[in-house]
Amino acid sequence: MSRRLAFLGPPGTFSEEAALKYDSQAELIPMASITAVASAVDSGMADQGIVPIENSLEGSVTETLDLLVHSGKPLSIRQEITLPIEHFLVARPGTKADDVQVVFAHPQALGQCRGFIERCFPKATVEAALSNSAAVEETMGREGSAAIGTGRAAEIYGAEVLARGIQDRNPNVTRFVILAREDHPRTGDDKTSFACAFAVEDRPGLLVGALEEFSQRSINLSKIESRPSRERLGTYIFLMDIDGHRADSVVAEALKCVKERCSFFRVLGSYPRYREPAA
Amino acid sequence: MSRRLAFLGPPGTFSEEAALKYDSQAELIPMASITAVASAVDSGMADQGIVPIENSLEGSVTETLDLLVHSGKPLSIRQEITLPIEHFLVARPGTKADDVQVVFAHPQALGQCRGFIERCFPKATVEAALSNSAAVEETMGREGSAAIGTGRAAEIYGAEVLARGIQDRNPNVTRFVILAREDHPRTGDDKTSFACAFAVEDRPGLLVGALEEFSQRSINLSKIESRPSRERLGTYIFLMDIDGHRADSVVAEALKCVKERCSFFRVLGSYPRYREPAA
Repeated sequence: MSRRLAFLGPPGTFSEEAALKYDSQAELIPMASITAVASAVDSGMADQGIVPIENSLEGSVTETLDLLVHSGKPLSIRQEITLPIEHFLVARPGTKADDVQVVFAHPQALGQCRGFIERCFPKATVEAALSNSAAVEETMGREGSAAIGTGRAAEIYGAEVLARGIQDRNPNVTRFVILAREDHPRTGDDKTSFACAFAVEDRPGLLVGALEEFSQRSINLSKIESRPSRERLGTYIFLMDIDGHRADSVVAEALKCVKERCSFFRVLGSYPRYREPAA
Repeated sequence: MSRRLAFLGPPGTFSEEAALKYDSQAELIPMASITAVASAVDSGMADQGIVPIENSLEGSVTETLDLLVHSGKPLSIRQEITLPIEHFLVARPGTKADDVQVVFAHPQALGQCRGFIERCFPKATVEAALSNSAAVEETMGREGSAAIGTGRAAEIYGAEVLARGIQDRNPNVTRFVILAREDHPRTGDDKTSFACAFAVEDRPGLLVGALEEFSQRSINLSKIESRPSRERLGTYIFLMDIDGHRADSVVAEALKCVKERCSFFRVLGSYPRYREPAA
């Protein structure tokens, strides 16, 4: 039976591309928001869910971080996967670049392709769309228009690709995580994500002391991020990624020592480090 | 001569409230974006600029962090100020709560007041507005409507306050920073913000080693945040706040030692710690 995989819809978004890259056989369930993806997994409507967590230009997806930290749901990170973000300019079949007077785009996609649009379509009007997918749907209904969209959306709606790779900056890569009710067994090439907070904020050395538990054991810290504790301004919850699996004895020992230093501590999951398949 | 202070417009926003709290005598110059505020200061059109940097519920304002890190502009943080975020429900004078069929709101403000609106106006339609200020302007033009807005916007447009403090969660506080061409002289109760990056990312202990320069000298680290380096996924620039002024000898020494460990290092400014005036 194929896996039921919830993702941030609608079909034709980068999240759907990532879902298909992760498991092309999965039964995909589009959800309206990142928290809805988590609820789908938590309630059993889906076996797993995939959500964006970080982009190489924009930084963390705070909705996902807050979900991992603040939701009471016992979901774990089971896998990670990265997807190069490639924007396409698409239109109704037969449309020529000269004909384009209107460009439909999601505001974030427009922000990433603004240089291209201003250089190549200086006189076109830009109209906002609700998603990359909706932009493509709109251009299919209007002559003399084009849309910034994904390759997948062009495929779904039968649009013609006028230009590809139109984003202004590269590399533009998004990392997604797969949420499930359990994390991943040890593979030998793993990462562990956890969240923690310290009771006394304004004392030097608490965070440093925790980090030393890793450096003393030669465990690499590959990411550190802070999110507001939501209790008062200036108090934070830290999200960290380290190398190794929580079942590795040295990692387990370091995590135990860190936990003792914290007022809040939660392992978000151990999972295999993502390696791009050879082309 | 009064100070020319650029802020994120239009008038009636929380940024304008913060600007007036900082300097009620300033000549306020509304700008269309956070980067435009910086350009106004950099070009001499304004003496100083005020931008939001962090909210107690939402976290950092990434556009401001990226401006401090990635823009080539030699602007410094000269002051900080915090503003409690209070949302008001306002309407045309004479409107009763019973009459309200439409609520105008900026999507972010709506997100912060959703519980109140759903409880008290379960049948009202919500219409998106471009800013908290625009929401109030729209309600003034439509009978049977209300708007989520600031106290300042109600004052500007002559709207009547139906309810105040309607945000779902407290404390909701935003910290703003004042940008100028020079930072602030030493006062004895100061903070210093800086940004740094390390050349070799995947080696344990580089970040810890830098942090130890502060903990060994009993300098408190009050904030640490990471932003993408924009070079490749998984490489970061760290933004940190420490106690003390860069002119304090112990702080100067620690910063010098940290700089030697970094591939990129920039002091963003030393400035007085904000203390709320006694009421």
